[in-house]
Amino acid sequence: MKKYLAEFIGTFWLVLGGCGSAVLAAAFPDVGIGLLGVSLAFGLTVLTIAYSLGHISGAHLNPAVTLGLWAGGRVSNKDVFPYIIAQILGGIAGAGVLYILATGNGSSIGSFAANGYGEHSPGHYSMGAAVVCEFVMTFMFLIIILGATDNHATKSFGGIAIGLGLTLIHLISIPVTNTSVNPARSISQALFVGDWAISQLWLFIIIPIAGAMVAGFVYRFLTKPETGSIMASNESVTVVPHH
Amino acid sequence: MKKYLAEFIGTFWLVLGGCGSAVLAAAFPDVGIGLLGVSLAFGLTVLTIAYSLGHISGAHLNPAVTLGLWAGGRVSNKDVFPYIIAQILGGIAGAGVLYILATGNGSSIGSFAANGYGEHSPGHYSMGAAVVCEFVMTFMFLIIILGATDNHATKSFGGIAIGLGLTLIHLISIPVTNTSVNPARSISQALFVGDWAISQLWLFIIIPIAGAMVAGFVYRFLTKPETGSIMASNESVTVVPHH
Amino acid sequence: MKKYLAEFIGTFWLVLGGCGSAVLAAAFPDVGIGLLGVSLAFGLTVLTIAYSLGHISGAHLNPAVTLGLWAGGRVSNKDVFPYIIAQILGGIAGAGVLYILATGNGSSIGSFAANGYGEHSPGHYSMGAAVVCEFVMTFMFLIIILGATDNHATKSFGGIAIGLGLTLIHLISIPVTNTSVNPARSISQALFVGDWAISQLWLFIIIPIAGAMVAGFVYRFLTKPETGSIMASNESVTVVPHH
Amino acid sequence: MKKYLAEFIGTFWLVLGGCGSAVLAAAFPDVGIGLLGVSLAFGLTVLTIAYSLGHISGAHLNPAVTLGLWAGGRVSNKDVFPYIIAQILGGIAGAGVLYILATGNGSSIGSFAANGYGEHSPGHYSMGAAVVCEFVMTFMFLIIILGATDNHATKSFGGIAIGLGLTLIHLISIPVTNTSVNPARSISQALFVGDWAISQLWLFIIIPIAGAMVAGFVYRFLTKPETGSIMASNESVTVVPHH
Repeated sequence: MKKYLAEFIGTFWLVLGGCGSAVLAAAFPDVGIGLLGVSLAFGLTVLTIAYSLGHISGAHLNPAVTLGLWAGGRVSNKDVFPYIIAQILGGIAGAGVLYILATGNGSSIGSFAANGYGEHSPGHYSMGAAVVCEFVMTFMFLIIILGATDNHATKSFGGIAIGLGLTLIHLISIPVTNTSVNPARSISQALFVGDWAISQLWLFIIIPIAGAMVAGFVYRFLTKPETGSIMASNESVTVVPHH
Repeated sequence: MKKYLAEFIGTFWLVLGGCGSAVLAAAFPDVGIGLLGVSLAFGLTVLTIAYSLGHISGAHLNPAVTLGLWAGGRVSNKDVFPYIIAQILGGIAGAGVLYILATGNGSSIGSFAANGYGEHSPGHYSMGAAVVCEFVMTFMFLIIILGATDNHATKSFGGIAIGLGLTLIHLISIPVTNTSVNPARSISQALFVGDWAISQLWLFIIIPIAGAMVAGFVYRFLTKPETGSIMASNESVTVVPHH
Repeated sequence: MKKYLAEFIGTFWLVLGGCGSAVLAAAFPDVGIGLLGVSLAFGLTVLTIAYSLGHISGAHLNPAVTLGLWAGGRVSNKDVFPYIIAQILGGIAGAGVLYILATGNGSSIGSFAANGYGEHSPGHYSMGAAVVCEFVMTFMFLIIILGATDNHATKSFGGIAIGLGLTLIHLISIPVTNTSVNPARSISQALFVGDWAISQLWLFIIIPIAGAMVAGFVYRFLTKPETGSIMASNESVTVVPHH
Repeated sequence: MKKYLAEFIGTFWLVLGGCGSAVLAAAFPDVGIGLLGVSLAFGLTVLTIAYSLGHISGAHLNPAVTLGLWAGGRVSNKDVFPYIIAQILGGIAGAGVLYILATGNGSSIGSFAANGYGEHSPGHYSMGAAVVCEFVMTFMFLIIILGATDNHATKSFGGIAIGLGLTLIHLISIPVTNTSVNPARSISQALFVGDWAISQLWLFIIIPIAGAMVAGFVYRFLTKPETGSIMASNESVTVVPHH
């Protein structure tokens, strides 16, 4: 149970911190943090949780990450479903707190930090571009995660590489889709926005998961597992390892 | 005595560096550092002190942190009061030096970097939003601190996670309250501004402390202490451990 | 073969992430990431690959780096050519995906993120300034790489020093040449832009390689190799070492 | 000799990178890096040299640092003078290359990145404010350096704490004095600007050195050296230690 609570708290923080910086501070007059500040905020939610709660749950904070790690043989079957539920609930709780804050000066939430394509893409990118973008970004996110937590890597730096990797992904792709790579984050915002955000939500669930799972299989190939070594362990992998 | 001096110097630096960047550089014409630069500055004050004086005092630099660590069983009773006094005095000293600098070109200090709500919130957020914001931000700050300095964590990265965690908190919440999460920082600014800053100061003392102490209790639950293990040690914990 | 695939993926990411952030996000209205965000993105592509795929290929991601490490006695003769081919192909693949994204809202690619001098320099710097700039920047990049991966250095921090070193190089030199220091990155952009970008490409191939190789020889001198110790090993060095 | 060459190269890089980012990129139209980018650049010059050449010379890169470490009992008498000479010459070489770049599009260098007070302070701060600012900033810089390289600290993180500490110092104080805390950096710029920059140079030599040396004595007190332990070793301390 404790590790599911850790995933709940961590994903709560990812949504409150990442989407919160976007909604509250990105376009603040004259001194706003811009897309660079939002990118940094998303990455730092992951970095901070990786080093603080990573020893409890592995700090996935993202259904696509859980499924990509599972495809890569790093997560036990029994953890997949409860991790994803905890992440979705945590994300919704984060969006709820953000709703209270964002409306606390009489503003409406507008499009919140929802993901979108076509006319709802920040830069009006097409659905096709959104599919390519979310697939490739989530694929590379999982390559970074799988590589940085590999037993041959200097794992203690994993939280920095993975967190700043999410920052990098946002630096590239906010204009295209507002950057998802995380179905729990997308769901949390769409529930509060409704309407178009719900009807475009499918893309931000299916494509990140597809990109992540393909990365899981590619990474297995890249690191040549020995014959018969496909893991079927009962223990979840931690992104930042215990001592 | 040396550890109290370390807390004094560290909180002096937190206020001079964090509030100083806001007052002197945030809105500098054309090339100002904005809220992103201020967020980074606050975080780097903690990061730099954690790795330099953490081995002396643990680098709390914040009465809410000291009380949250105490609630989490990580600080001895006897250190709580002197740590808080040293932090408040250090903060005031930092504000004093900042006053000398800020008025050194003939400017008045205006609202300095004081915290506020309602009409004194940077984005005019209500008192209710300010309470939610300061509670949740300080709660998460302590979760990060307690987790990153846990014996099961890779503690040497604690200074990075905690410092950049404070950066993240500022990226989200400067528009709401100018971000306190630290009564010593709020007191130091209110003393120089007087007036409304003093009359709103209660919120930035009570709420961060409440958020921090709840986090202390929650983290104890999250990490299942064995029966009877509630610490009553005479030794303060260091945020960044000695070798 | 696996290490060549790792170089392919890594250089794909360097071009997609670094040039992608420039093309898609740098000048986004009101909240664009600017040259600071682009500089951070280039550095984070290297940082993330160093900690994730560094244990497979060493994460060179740049023909000038491979040749500079070879000049410094750190890469075996047999790896030089296939590494460079993998890097060039990976860079072109990254530019291809970026082409799909960048044109996904009906925009043309303009000058993409191609490198240039004279009238094609972002700040209209002369060819002479471009030569000095690319030579010195690549020279210092290799000094950082050779030093940070030296057996006497704290190698595990190499990915941070090298990645943020590339960020620093961009913070200085984007106005001069749009910053190359990497022939694979320059080739990838010039192929899509054609015309002037092709005709100026020679500078961004020859000068970075010259700067890198001179650094290799200087670093050998700086660290006084014992007589007879010039490496002729069959194994490539990893930038971030295995455990 | 090799360590003096390392100091030369490192200070060359500090001036070229830090002052170069200010002169070439800070105010670039629309997408300039601003004071935040310049602050990051200065810090990254130190971070990159600490992890790459720190094992050779200790990466002081600054006469005030060398003298502050000497006052703290960490540098041998015989190294003080040659380190300072190497730093000054390296800084001048960096300014020379920057001169070539900065004038490479027909611009004049204007006030280059020279330090100043009164009418030559970026924010028109008085000489008194400049004295307080440079003293306190250099004092805290040395506290960070002495603490982060203490045998009781997690020294491997020293390059991050010290480099980002210099970033923090710039985030606060560029508006006041254009930030020196480093006589070699100030000398290098003043020589090219001449005139007022030369006549104000005394402040940026004397005050940083005073702040640094006071910090050396304070830090000795903070860490209670045992009786008789005042170092008189013949070996220079490295900021980032060898393995």
